[in-house]
Amino acid sequence: MERYEHGGDIFTNTGINLDFSVNLNPLGMPKAVVNVIRDKAESFAGYPDPKCRELVSAIAEHEGCPPEWILCGNGADDLIFRLCQCLMPKKALLCSPTFSEYERAVHLSGGSTKYHKLSYEDTFLVSNRILDDIGSDTDIVFLCNPNNPTGLLIDFNLLLKIAKKCWKAGITLIIDECFLPFTDGSSAKELLPDFDNIVILKAFTKLYSMAGLRLGYMLTSNKNILKKTHDAAQYWSVSTVAQAAGIAALSCVEYVQETKKILRSEREFLISRLSQMGLQVIPSDANFLLIRSDVSLYEPLLSRGILVRDCSNFEGLNSDFIRICIKTREANEILLKNIKEVLYG
Amino acid sequence: MERYEHGGDIFTNTGINLDFSVNLNPLGMPKAVVNVIRDKAESFAGYPDPKCRELVSAIAEHEGCPPEWILCGNGADDLIFRLCQCLMPKKALLCSPTFSEYERAVHLSGGSTKYHKLSYEDTFLVSNRILDDIGSDTDIVFLCNPNNPTGLLIDFNLLLKIAKKCWKAGITLIIDECFLPFTDGSSAKELLPDFDNIVILKAFTKLYSMAGLRLGYMLTSNKNILKKTHDAAQYWSVSTVAQAAGIAALSCVEYVQETKKILRSEREFLISRLSQMGLQVIPSDANFLLIRSDVSLYEPLLSRGILVRDCSNFEGLNSDFIRICIKTREANEILLKNIKEVLYG
Repeated sequence: MERYEHGGDIFTNTGINLDFSVNLNPLGMPKAVVNVIRDKAESFAGYPDPKCRELVSAIAEHEGCPPEWILCGNGADDLIFRLCQCLMPKKALLCSPTFSEYERAVHLSGGSTKYHKLSYEDTFLVSNRILDDIGSDTDIVFLCNPNNPTGLLIDFNLLLKIAKKCWKAGITLIIDECFLPFTDGSSAKELLPDFDNIVILKAFTKLYSMAGLRLGYMLTSNKNILKKTHDAAQYWSVSTVAQAAGIAALSCVEYVQETKKILRSEREFLISRLSQMGLQVIPSDANFLLIRSDVSLYEPLLSRGILVRDCSNFEGLNSDFIRICIKTREANEILLKNIKEVLYG
Repeated sequence: MERYEHGGDIFTNTGINLDFSVNLNPLGMPKAVVNVIRDKAESFAGYPDPKCRELVSAIAEHEGCPPEWILCGNGADDLIFRLCQCLMPKKALLCSPTFSEYERAVHLSGGSTKYHKLSYEDTFLVSNRILDDIGSDTDIVFLCNPNNPTGLLIDFNLLLKIAKKCWKAGITLIIDECFLPFTDGSSAKELLPDFDNIVILKAFTKLYSMAGLRLGYMLTSNKNILKKTHDAAQYWSVSTVAQAAGIAALSCVEYVQETKKILRSEREFLISRLSQMGLQVIPSDANFLLIRSDVSLYEPLLSRGILVRDCSNFEGLNSDFIRICIKTREANEILLKNIKEVLYG
């Protein structure tokens, strides 16, 4: 029906043994989540609580935010589309490269997009230059922190400057923190009491490896945005399964600690080995790596049953770039072995 | 955040022992669906197939339609909102009373609604009169067949007349058949090859009692509507759980036969007993009954732990009406006993 432009397309690409194209937690879904799905399977017969009361209460405690600031959705992507549908931005500022669904959502609601171009020379780091691109014609700014596909965090002081500039100009700032829990970065949630122009997006998808369940949420102190975004959809957008799974996931504190520990060492391991092979690796803060290679890697790896993210359809990138997620040692070693064979025969 | 205007609010009304306010299959979720959720729980970690290929193929076989005519959604309600969002109807014709989400979706996309008033004197049956209300200012017509909350089917010859009138005038006709499998009525799907202005909505929610999983689909031969509705959302709106559950549900042929058998006898039983108590019962074709009573029933039943659907917020009805779903004999007898006590002490 249309070209699919994301990672994880194991449905078209059959014969995949290892999927490095989606950025999910390498530990897989927590046991507590698997168990709650099994235990509560029969209860999924009934309608979900449209207000997700129990889940919202658990998120509020987890985030240290009032429950009134929280809205859950059918994945964070659901909220991206609903936000655009009700904010109807005429002009949105996006970084390039970044996650492409922001643009699709803006276009769908009739708006146009303007790019702040990040440069390879600066390892695609967001710098003070972005402030010049936040202009009077901007209605909305999307920031992905850490950015996808680079994995780089935005400096918190810069984030504050961006928030201030947006606030003064009446611009809504949407900060996508879906990958933030994999990093050591700080959430912008501490800015919410002072900045009612900020909306933070978060997801269970990646951190708890529950992409197939669809659960995300947004945080904002802006009651108007919350009400509009809530009203811009059916009542039952968040399934009973996702609500139960989300509550179970939030109790998995050790799992998150273990995840970060593994990622720290595996990230270092992969960056070091890939660099040794002569590849240029962006020094990611997250659970995935953007890699530049003069030699094409996507197709040769695919023919070996390994799917990586071809980045040619990211605005601002081309087919020299691939993105890989960071997995556990055994899988990472298989990837390295195969990349080495592709590069050096 | 807003007044909740549907049945099933067991989250606000605590202490409910029996919920007669939602129209789910009285047999509960089929064992095959429960089992597939348990067996596949770990696989819900990965992203769903955005094209729902396996599920669409199963639906195509089940419906006898080409897979190209099928689009799945996060419940049929998701598709109602997406359809309105991309068709942007200026004026929609709705019956009153009917399911209220059509109106909410039309209003959300900036359109207005016009009512075709069904009358209590005709037991709210849709008659030829509706043809006069399909005018040159109408962009879209919503028909719920059987209608909710009356449970009455529309005569198929009348449906054909409506389809023809809409087709000639370039009006999109959306026929919601979510409750049709509970009845002996015919689907409008046989009209799809000739009428590219028809969109049929179907759901797994009610028939297979899997409301908490969120799964619905639409059928149309109109490629333009299909593409627009597909594009009006994130890629991953249908969860992996829902896709797996849907495929399992379609294999439950005996469960559906058993459901219809039970409903036939329980419907007759309930109508007869409720009428004996002096209540006016609409002669429903579906798995629920609309009841008129001079004595208030909602609150007294609620205080006894039984939730029924108060119909006062249905356009065209008032607090004299309640709607109950048809359950299995034991539960139905408890309801009857309690209604009798409310009426006669």
